[in-house]
Amino acid sequence: MAATTSSYSITMRLHTAPDHGIVGAVATAIAQDGGIVTAIDVAESSHERLVVDVTCSASDADHAKELEVAVDAIPGVEVHKTSDRTFLLHLGGKIEVTSKVPLRNRDDLSMAYTPGVGRVSMAIAEHPEDVWRLTSKGNTVAVVTDGSAVLGLGNIGPGAAMPVMEGKAALFKRFANIDAWPICLDTQDTDEIVRAVEMIAPGFGGINLEDIAAPRCFEIERRLRASLDIPVFHDDQHGTAIVVLAALTNALRVVRKELDQVRVVVSGAGAAGTAIVTLLIAAGVTDVVVWDREGCLSADDDALPPAKKQLADVTNPRRVRGDLRAGLAGADVFIGVSAPGVLKAEWIQDMAPDAVVFALANPDPEVDPAEAEKYAAVVASGRSDYPNQINNVLAFPGVFRGLLDARASEITLDMLLRAAEAIAHVVKDSELNPNFIIPTVFHPDVPKAVAAAIRGTA
Amino acid sequence: MAATTSSYSITMRLHTAPDHGIVGAVATAIAQDGGIVTAIDVAESSHERLVVDVTCSASDADHAKELEVAVDAIPGVEVHKTSDRTFLLHLGGKIEVTSKVPLRNRDDLSMAYTPGVGRVSMAIAEHPEDVWRLTSKGNTVAVVTDGSAVLGLGNIGPGAAMPVMEGKAALFKRFANIDAWPICLDTQDTDEIVRAVEMIAPGFGGINLEDIAAPRCFEIERRLRASLDIPVFHDDQHGTAIVVLAALTNALRVVRKELDQVRVVVSGAGAAGTAIVTLLIAAGVTDVVVWDREGCLSADDDALPPAKKQLADVTNPRRVRGDLRAGLAGADVFIGVSAPGVLKAEWIQDMAPDAVVFALANPDPEVDPAEAEKYAAVVASGRSDYPNQINNVLAFPGVFRGLLDARASEITLDMLLRAAEAIAHVVKDSELNPNFIIPTVFHPDVPKAVAAAIRGTA
Repeated sequence: MAATTSSYSITMRLHTAPDHGIVGAVATAIAQDGGIVTAIDVAESSHERLVVDVTCSASDADHAKELEVAVDAIPGVEVHKTSDRTFLLHLGGKIEVTSKVPLRNRDDLSMAYTPGVGRVSMAIAEHPEDVWRLTSKGNTVAVVTDGSAVLGLGNIGPGAAMPVMEGKAALFKRFANIDAWPICLDTQDTDEIVRAVEMIAPGFGGINLEDIAAPRCFEIERRLRASLDIPVFHDDQHGTAIVVLAALTNALRVVRKELDQVRVVVSGAGAAGTAIVTLLIAAGVTDVVVWDREGCLSADDDALPPAKKQLADVTNPRRVRGDLRAGLAGADVFIGVSAPGVLKAEWIQDMAPDAVVFALANPDPEVDPAEAEKYAAVVASGRSDYPNQINNVLAFPGVFRGLLDARASEITLDMLLRAAEAIAHVVKDSELNPNFIIPTVFHPDVPKAVAAAIRGTA
Repeated sequence: MAATTSSYSITMRLHTAPDHGIVGAVATAIAQDGGIVTAIDVAESSHERLVVDVTCSASDADHAKELEVAVDAIPGVEVHKTSDRTFLLHLGGKIEVTSKVPLRNRDDLSMAYTPGVGRVSMAIAEHPEDVWRLTSKGNTVAVVTDGSAVLGLGNIGPGAAMPVMEGKAALFKRFANIDAWPICLDTQDTDEIVRAVEMIAPGFGGINLEDIAAPRCFEIERRLRASLDIPVFHDDQHGTAIVVLAALTNALRVVRKELDQVRVVVSGAGAAGTAIVTLLIAAGVTDVVVWDREGCLSADDDALPPAKKQLADVTNPRRVRGDLRAGLAGADVFIGVSAPGVLKAEWIQDMAPDAVVFALANPDPEVDPAEAEKYAAVVASGRSDYPNQINNVLAFPGVFRGLLDARASEITLDMLLRAAEAIAHVVKDSELNPNFIIPTVFHPDVPKAVAAAIRGTA
């Protein structure tokens, strides 16, 4: 059974007989079924019955249902209602807008709003660059999506994307004190997305594109970078690439291999795969081969669509052909940003000694990390229930903190490299080991180190 | 000299001789020049000198400069630096985004972000209406401008409009606990503005259009109301109209006249004027005549542009011609939403007895309220330094609170009428007098009463 996580934490309200020991029986039943009880509150007690709220973690939705059934089956216990803590947490949304200035009386109003605000507006009209200083722009990021590639859930649309974008905004605040606002666009047309972002740009200091499907995302980012005077960063691409490069840097420190000498196999030629390959090459990797659903990308394949052709042109120097399994032979590094289960753990045996495996498909990786560990020297995944979680939260808050601090108008490849280096270096030599190649997202040095690296390059 | 307001509050840092009485001399000089000292802090004291921070209010920017010169002229006093409190208040902007959920540890993260958030997104994908419940949408308003008609400052553009939109967002929170975010659009094309708002709409529960020039604003609002399933409210039109109707209702209570029997003269056929006239007619006023820069609107004038022709068609039943002064003869009510000084105070003598004068041009009204008071029974203005301030803050927070609470998909004329009635009724019969026809924006009942009125109609 997979580890339990709080994302499947539920609270059951039980009506029970007022029997001695019945609460203990509930706790036992949950534990026997693999759940973890985190809280028990007796909400009501009388001679006739007890009302008990039991909060417990389950490994997934089905498991939560099983636990409910198991508890309900205890004689004298009835599950009256089950609430899901994740849903409770989301009620009313996760972010709010608050005023940084007092609005207690007329004097406050006359400074923050009319008539005082008029002078501030005129100052900006006369000196447009003052908008960075006299408004929120300088600390603000728009988290923009079209809802076309949300998490691993696919094209679920802008409304359903909202909880993810709000979560992202909350993380921006938590990790970098940035004010981010979700902009969920009701269009999936490239031209319209570009124009929408151009139009809303004046109030923001940066644009974080999020969960926009490939290849559309490449063109959108390219065009916005050309037209806007604020940095544009597609997190699914570059955030992932930064953290992968940081993790790979440290994984290679563990196995004592050099970046410019390893052979890297990438599974997945979407937004993340493309950005990872670009950054790895910029960092000095010379031998990358990319597989997608149709096979191995090769520059001599004229049937490739434009985005994949570009990727093929800079990869696969040995003109490898064939399937993924064959391609793994002798490879030092596998990086999966594709789909669950495409890598059989046994295939890792065909890789070079001390293989590094990053299985990053979400929520279900290319290979079960526990299985991969049997054959690979270092394993990382996107999951929080295994060591070495490759998590974009390590990158984007610090990246934008640095960009905003520097009032950068663009983000460069060099910045991405320095950000990866900064994350890698948070892990000290003395800490480095196969189960700790990447710091936790709660490491307080991470966003600061990334921001400093970006500022130093801006 | 006009009253001092905090919007021109400055802090002077003085270097002075360490003389006994020198601080008193500074306070005296400021008072003699009409300033009001609100704080004196000695920041540093030595045998050689004092460093003193003096905060004082001035009536306007020129007056502030005068005070600085007067203080600098005191022997032994040097004004080292002057800071403007309004600008200090705006440094870094006035609003921020905060997380409503804890993000202390991995468990928190796994509920607010991946993987837990994925289940919430899927729930919304399956039941789109749940976006109102499970995200911030249900408490959120976009404050949208193109920067084309900002306050009385004109077409200063989206960046310079930011401080006003941020102020508005801060007021939304302060008065109605609504999370509003400024969207300052880098376009002044009607089609583009409409499309931009349509595209960003999924994340918002309502749209507050702000400071968009007429006649563009009419078409934008009309088209958005047709295409969106959330309410769209141009505050410069309907917010103003609600508060004017509320104030007029109470002004007529004071002078004991009936809404359906008064003759009303409106100066200004822009966004506010048009909305005021529409609402007054809906409330029962039968005789309104509108003047603009070109003269008196009349249905038989074929040269009028479309928006003004529409207004002409429902006004001026007596087919009045001539200038504003002539039009005032026998009128009971003057409402100015036009330009400074268009009404000479003496002209009010030509109006019917117990004339009501609302001079709402901002920041400088159609007639000095103090002058108008000599001839009119009730005077109101947009200024905070006279009684009876007509301030949109009385309307928009409660209006959107009610709309969001009711999950209204549109805003109706009936809602506007009920909102005006609610504001008017906050002033009790026992409180009503010529200097108190409208409650202060800080009256805690106002947003609640307005919200309840809107909910009751939704």
